[in-house]
Amino acid sequence: MSNLYFEEVDLGAVSNAGPYLVSKDEIISFAKQYDPVPRHIDEEAASRSMFGGLTASGAHTFAILISLTGRLQPRNVTLAGLGWDELRLPNPVRPDDALDLEVKVLEKRESKSKPDRGIVRRQVVLRNQNRETVLACFASVLIAKRPGS
Amino acid sequence: MSNLYFEEVDLGAVSNAGPYLVSKDEIISFAKQYDPVPRHIDEEAASRSMFGGLTASGAHTFAILISLTGRLQPRNVTLAGLGWDELRLPNPVRPDDALDLEVKVLEKRESKSKPDRGIVRRQVVLRNQNRETVLACFASVLIAKRPGS
Repeated sequence: MSNLYFEEVDLGAVSNAGPYLVSKDEIISFAKQYDPVPRHIDEEAASRSMFGGLTASGAHTFAILISLTGRLQPRNVTLAGLGWDELRLPNPVRPDDALDLEVKVLEKRESKSKPDRGIVRRQVVLRNQNRETVLACFASVLIAKRPGS
Repeated sequence: MSNLYFEEVDLGAVSNAGPYLVSKDEIISFAKQYDPVPRHIDEEAASRSMFGGLTASGAHTFAILISLTGRLQPRNVTLAGLGWDELRLPNPVRPDDALDLEVKVLEKRESKSKPDRGIVRRQVVLRNQNRETVLACFASVLIAKRPGS
């Protein structure tokens, strides 16, 4: 499928990607490198935590969201991520979860300083196999305009 | 150094961690797994991008922030990250950057539903060796109260 430039991004359009299967090994190896606290790397300690079992680091959940964003179809010609707002983790990600991403276009505007690009604001929701939200946020991304437009 | 419970978190207190040295290999291997676009994994393509060279995925920069948060001294008895607001990446992270984290306590309040914990809102800034901000956000974390308090 072709990539969409800024001009082709429609307000209200919804796109999806997934599932992303989260293994226990991936949860532990990510957390060992970036967030090595017992609730993310030690099954025994995690079973006594407030979540009652191993959970993924929030940084890992965010990385999975970025990974799925790259698999959205159709894909935008994204130049850079600009920022994320109201990022929330209402439910933890656990081993063997299957995560799905839903992205909805909320706003688009042309860049004031650079005529070759625009800014799109999207509502982003990552859910598990039980349709529980594990990450929700608003994302602003810089998207290229069609060359020569 | 001992861990600080909710009662011992002071408004306005600043803590630091770092430096975190970012290698080119780490930028590429993280991005290959979670954000495999040319500007993060292909030096030649990255040199032609808007940043003029290889840059870290935003998800990677966020993971480094979480990693440094775990090294703050003194450390809080953190139960979970609740959310992040106004997350911005004003400058890219590049190979061989040395990143430092600064965290300032802005607000604290007791949990309404759970008497054994409280919520702390912190201003979080990650800077490179040139004192340029590469990530800024506000983070809300759940912190345990001293047992038996």
